[in-house]
Amino acid sequence: MIEWFDDLKLGMRFKSGEVTVSKEDILRFASEFDPQPFHLDEEAAKNTMLGGLAASGWHTAAISMKLATDCRPFGPHPLLGAGVDDLRWPRPVRPGDTLHLEGEVVDLVPSKTKPQGIVRIKWTAYNQNGEAVYTFNPIGIVPRRPV
Amino acid sequence: MIEWFDDLKLGMRFKSGEVTVSKEDILRFASEFDPQPFHLDEEAAKNTMLGGLAASGWHTAAISMKLATDCRPFGPHPLLGAGVDDLRWPRPVRPGDTLHLEGEVVDLVPSKTKPQGIVRIKWTAYNQNGEAVYTFNPIGIVPRRPV
Repeated sequence: MIEWFDDLKLGMRFKSGEVTVSKEDILRFASEFDPQPFHLDEEAAKNTMLGGLAASGWHTAAISMKLATDCRPFGPHPLLGAGVDDLRWPRPVRPGDTLHLEGEVVDLVPSKTKPQGIVRIKWTAYNQNGEAVYTFNPIGIVPRRPV
Repeated sequence: MIEWFDDLKLGMRFKSGEVTVSKEDILRFASEFDPQPFHLDEEAAKNTMLGGLAASGWHTAAISMKLATDCRPFGPHPLLGAGVDDLRWPRPVRPGDTLHLEGEVVDLVPSKTKPQGIVRIKWTAYNQNGEAVYTFNPIGIVPRRPV
């Protein structure tokens, strides 16, 4: 069971449940935050680089955050960090796609001055065909076990 | 006027309009995408690292995408890229904060094989006190002027 930074090990893996992204979800998010034709209009989207309606990358990012919180990789401690690196979207998320998230601990750096450590988990979101649609690498901060 | 990759210059700057983030906005986004106490519950948030209710970083990211699209940094071409690097949240976004976005072109790399180029804009979101609350650096792809 993970309770503290000290319980995390390199190569440890996490896997979330699934979520299906509806066309209505895609349109609602894009209308508020990313109002561009390939996220808003099926017909107009056909003639764009995405070749059809696709979720905003920020929508996929937000859905993936929800899936990451479900994984509870830091046990009772929150997912809260200094930043996130390397957001990539290798493939569009289409209406009706079912996504899940997998993560692997790739770096663990105990702080020299504070009772905590930095945890890097490389997260990848996959669609129902097992194709990666999004990756990201947050800088997680987790307390050390009190001595 | 910016129409093509060739019209962008290093140091070129953009500035968006303003948006005010309500407590209701913060709770609605967090309920769907980032259900952690410091984004959901004013009382519980007081005893966390954020010291009070604050927007999800992904909410600030989504709001900033909207502000970036308003800037139309690539003229008629969309904001669509291969990825985003260096997301950082130096300060929490609180209920009632008014944000705007500023961007500066920091790198321009013409493709050697395609009629396009990669544009890096360093974007910073500021609150009403002029404090940076969020930075990000997307990999923008913009077509070159047809010859």
